[in-house]
Amino acid sequence: MNALDLNCDMGESFGAWSMGDDAAVLEYVSSVNLACGFHAGDPSTIRRTMAAAMARGVAVGAHPSLPDLQGFGRREMHIEPQEAYDLTLYQIGAVAAFARAGGGGLHHVKPHGALYNMAASNAELAAAIARAVRDFDPGLILYGLSGSELVRAGRQAGIAVASEVFSDRTYQRDGSLAPRGRPDSVIHDVDQAVEQVVRMVTAGRVRCVDGTDIAIEADTLCIHGDSPHAPAFARAIRAELERLGIAVRAPS
Amino acid sequence: MNALDLNCDMGESFGAWSMGDDAAVLEYVSSVNLACGFHAGDPSTIRRTMAAAMARGVAVGAHPSLPDLQGFGRREMHIEPQEAYDLTLYQIGAVAAFARAGGGGLHHVKPHGALYNMAASNAELAAAIARAVRDFDPGLILYGLSGSELVRAGRQAGIAVASEVFSDRTYQRDGSLAPRGRPDSVIHDVDQAVEQVVRMVTAGRVRCVDGTDIAIEADTLCIHGDSPHAPAFARAIRAELERLGIAVRAPS
Amino acid sequence: MNALDLNCDMGESFGAWSMGDDAAVLEYVSSVNLACGFHAGDPSTIRRTMAAAMARGVAVGAHPSLPDLQGFGRREMHIEPQEAYDLTLYQIGAVAAFARAGGGGLHHVKPHGALYNMAASNAELAAAIARAVRDFDPGLILYGLSGSELVRAGRQAGIAVASEVFSDRTYQRDGSLAPRGRPDSVIHDVDQAVEQVVRMVTAGRVRCVDGTDIAIEADTLCIHGDSPHAPAFARAIRAELERLGIAVRAPS
Amino acid sequence: MNALDLNCDMGESFGAWSMGDDAAVLEYVSSVNLACGFHAGDPSTIRRTMAAAMARGVAVGAHPSLPDLQGFGRREMHIEPQEAYDLTLYQIGAVAAFARAGGGGLHHVKPHGALYNMAASNAELAAAIARAVRDFDPGLILYGLSGSELVRAGRQAGIAVASEVFSDRTYQRDGSLAPRGRPDSVIHDVDQAVEQVVRMVTAGRVRCVDGTDIAIEADTLCIHGDSPHAPAFARAIRAELERLGIAVRAPS
Repeated sequence: MNALDLNCDMGESFGAWSMGDDAAVLEYVSSVNLACGFHAGDPSTIRRTMAAAMARGVAVGAHPSLPDLQGFGRREMHIEPQEAYDLTLYQIGAVAAFARAGGGGLHHVKPHGALYNMAASNAELAAAIARAVRDFDPGLILYGLSGSELVRAGRQAGIAVASEVFSDRTYQRDGSLAPRGRPDSVIHDVDQAVEQVVRMVTAGRVRCVDGTDIAIEADTLCIHGDSPHAPAFARAIRAELERLGIAVRAPS
Repeated sequence: MNALDLNCDMGESFGAWSMGDDAAVLEYVSSVNLACGFHAGDPSTIRRTMAAAMARGVAVGAHPSLPDLQGFGRREMHIEPQEAYDLTLYQIGAVAAFARAGGGGLHHVKPHGALYNMAASNAELAAAIARAVRDFDPGLILYGLSGSELVRAGRQAGIAVASEVFSDRTYQRDGSLAPRGRPDSVIHDVDQAVEQVVRMVTAGRVRCVDGTDIAIEADTLCIHGDSPHAPAFARAIRAELERLGIAVRAPS
Repeated sequence: MNALDLNCDMGESFGAWSMGDDAAVLEYVSSVNLACGFHAGDPSTIRRTMAAAMARGVAVGAHPSLPDLQGFGRREMHIEPQEAYDLTLYQIGAVAAFARAGGGGLHHVKPHGALYNMAASNAELAAAIARAVRDFDPGLILYGLSGSELVRAGRQAGIAVASEVFSDRTYQRDGSLAPRGRPDSVIHDVDQAVEQVVRMVTAGRVRCVDGTDIAIEADTLCIHGDSPHAPAFARAIRAELERLGIAVRAPS
Repeated sequence: MNALDLNCDMGESFGAWSMGDDAAVLEYVSSVNLACGFHAGDPSTIRRTMAAAMARGVAVGAHPSLPDLQGFGRREMHIEPQEAYDLTLYQIGAVAAFARAGGGGLHHVKPHGALYNMAASNAELAAAIARAVRDFDPGLILYGLSGSELVRAGRQAGIAVASEVFSDRTYQRDGSLAPRGRPDSVIHDVDQAVEQVVRMVTAGRVRCVDGTDIAIEADTLCIHGDSPHAPAFARAIRAELERLGIAVRAPS
C-alpha cells in the first residue's frame, strides 16, 4: 500500500522576529523539520515549536543549517566535510534535547537551505552529514532530495532515508530540480501540482521539463510553510491522496 | 573515605582563536566542563575537546553560558527563568551529542561565568537550570557554588549535586566568595591554597576573611585553566590529597 | 513658537525576518532611529531604510544597542562605560556610512531598549554614550528620556540634546515612566494621549499617576512603530499639533 | 624614486581571545588593516588597535570581511554584489568612526580573507566593493591583489589603488598566486623572499613557478602577522629595501 509523508520546515522565528504560521501548518503535515539555531530558531522557539509539534502528534526532525543567521542559511559557504559533520551533530543534539525533555525523541534529520543543496551534489559533504546522523542515533531517518548524493550517503551509512520530492517545482532529465531561473521551474497550478505528486507516488515517475519521463522515488513531499499558496496546495494534495487511499504519514 | 573532584573548564577556543592548554590541564583533573558554543566552543572545538577528554578518561560535563561570545559569558544579563531553562537545555543537548557520538555520555553540568554567579543567588534561575538538567537526564550531576541557591535547587529537583569550592579564593562568613575588589580575595600562596582545600575536604570547614570559621561542603574543586599558576596549584593540591589518602575522582 | 519632533524606530528587520511597516511610519514622523545591526538591522536593511528615510526627507539618526540580537537589545546586560562608548561609536559609524554614501549625514543618536533605559539612570554609562556621540560628531543631537541622566550627560558633554516624552505612557513624580507592571502605566485612550502630549509641549507639564503635576521638557515624542495602535495615535497627535499651530519637525 | 608599502592585518583579537602581536608588528610596517568585527575585532579591540596604530603614525585601513566569525572570514560564501557593497560600507564606517574619534581618518580599505580572494576573480563583487569604498570616501585607497579584478574595479571606480604582492608566495604565469596545495607555493627562504620583493619593486617583474618571467605591479607588500617567521622576513625585507634606497611608506 502506498503512503506519502508531508513535511514542512518549522520554528523559523528568531527572538523578536516571527516567521511562518506554524500552528496552521501543523494541521496538514505528518512531519516537521525544526530550525536548530544556526539559520533560525533560538532555544525558546525550539522549545515552543517542539511542544506544539509533539502535542499534535506529528513526527519531529532536526533541520540543521550552515551558520548563517543573516542569510537564513541560504547562502552557499565553503565548508569541509568535517565541519559539516560537526555542525550537523551539534544541531541535532540541541534540538533532540527538547524532544527528550518533552518525553519524546527525534524522528529524522533534514539539512536546510544551502546545506541541503550542497549535500545533494557533493558526495563528501553528504557522507559527513549522514555519518553525523548515524553517530547520534542510527534509528534516525535522513531526508534528502530524491536521487541525490545525500540519499545515497544515508544508504551507505546504513541508515534509513526518505526521498524528498516537490509538488510545486519541475524536474530535469537527471532528476534534479529545474533551476529557479527558468520560467517553467515553478508550478503555480494546484491541479498540475496534485497530478505531479500523485503520479510520483503511485507510478514512481515524473514528467520532466524537456518532455522525458523519468523514474523518481517519493517518500516525503516538501510543503513550503512560508508560501502564501502552501495551505491550498497542501490541502488539495492531502485530499486527493486520501481519496486515492494513499496514507499521509511519516516514514518509519 | 574522603574524595575530591578536580574540575576545569575546557574547550574554550573558538574558530581561529585558541584559549587554554587543554592537553596540559587534562593531566591533573578528574572532570572537565566543556564550553557549548554560547561563550566559547564551536562545534569542531567541542568534538576535539570531547575526544581528548574521553581518551584521557576524565568525566565530561557541559558548561552552558549566557549567549555572549563577545563578553565570554562573563557579563550579567537579565534573562527570565524560562530563558535560562531553554538555553541550558539547548547547550547540554549540543554537547551531549558529541559524547554520544563518541560512545560515551555526559557526567555533569556546570553553568559558566555570569550564569553561574546569577544562579548562585537567584533561586528562580537556579530552579530553571536544575530543571533543565533533570529534564535532559536525571542522572546528571549539577555542579554549583557550595552553599548556593544552585546547589539547593539541584537537590529540590531531585538530582545529584556537587558543591564546588575554590583553592585560590577566600570566603565570607555567609559562605560566599570574597568579592574580587578586596585585596585579600585571592590566595596567591600555594601552601595556603593547599591548606584551605585540605581543611575543606577533611574537616568540612573554611576560615573566612573576617576570621570566623564556617562549615562548607567540598565535593569538587575548581581549577582555573587560564591562570598561569593553575598547573602549579593543581599539582601541589593533588600531591597533598594523595599523600593524605584522599582520592581525586569525579563524583558519582 | 512651539515645535515637537515625532520620532520612530526603524529598520528593525534582520535578514529574512521583517518587522514594522517602515513605509507607513515614514508618513507621519519627522525623525527616525535606524537599527545598527546589534539588536536588529543588517547592512542591507540599513541601506534600504536609509534610502527610504532620505527620500522622504525625515531626519535620520542611529539607534545603537547592546549586542543582543536574540533578545532584541531589550535585556539589560552589565557593561562597563568604556564598552558602552565603544559599541556606541561603532554603531554610529556603521550607520553614518550609509548616510554619507547617500549624500547626507546623520542627525541624531538615540540608544535602544535596555541601553536607553540603563543610560537613563546610570550616569557613567550615560557619560560614555554622550562622549561617543560627541567624539564622532559634536553636531549630532542626543535623544534621551526627558529628565534622565542621558540628557544631563549630553549637556555636560557639550552637545545638543532632545528630551524624549511618551504619549502612551504615564509618569511618576520623579519624572520617570510608571513601570509597565502597574495597571495605569499605559494610556490606551487616544484623546488622553493627545491631551498629555499637547500639555507637555504647550505648558511643559504632565500630570503624574499620583495626581501631582510636574514640569517636563518635551522636544521629541516617541512613536512605537511596532504597536498596532501607533498610526492612529500618531495621526491624531499630529492633527492636533497642527491645529494648534505647533510645528512637527526634527530638532536642530 | 621607488617606494613600497609594508602592510599587515591587525586588531584580530575578539573579546577574551587574542591573536597576533600587534605591538611588535607595528614596528616594521607602514600601514595596517584593521579587522572590523565581521571576522574578528570587537568594538573595544578596534578602539585599542586604532589608538596604537595612530600613536605609531602608520596609515590605518579597514579590513572588511564576510560575516563569519567562526570561520575567521576564510570560508567562501555566496553573496550578491549588493550584499558585498552593503557589508563593506558598514564595516568601513564602523572602523572609520574610531579613526575620526581619534582625530584622524582612514587611509585605505583591504578586503579580508575569502572576500579578498573572491574579489580578485569576480568582477561584479570587485565592482561592488570598489563602489562602497568610493561612496564612503573617494580619497580612500583600495588595496587588492596585483593584477586582480579588484584592482581593475578600483581604477574603473575612479579611486586610487595599491597593487598587493607577497614575499612568501610564488606566482603563476597569469599573475595569480600558486595554490597552497602545490609544494612550491610557499617561499620559506628569507633570501629568496627578499630577492623576489626587490625584483618586483625595482624591475616590476617576478619569476613564476613555471619558469616564465612576468610583469607585476608592486605597491604594497603583505606581511602575515600571524606567521612566526613574519618578523624575520619583514626585518630582512625592510633592511634590504632601505639599503637600496627604496622608501618604505604607505601609498598616497
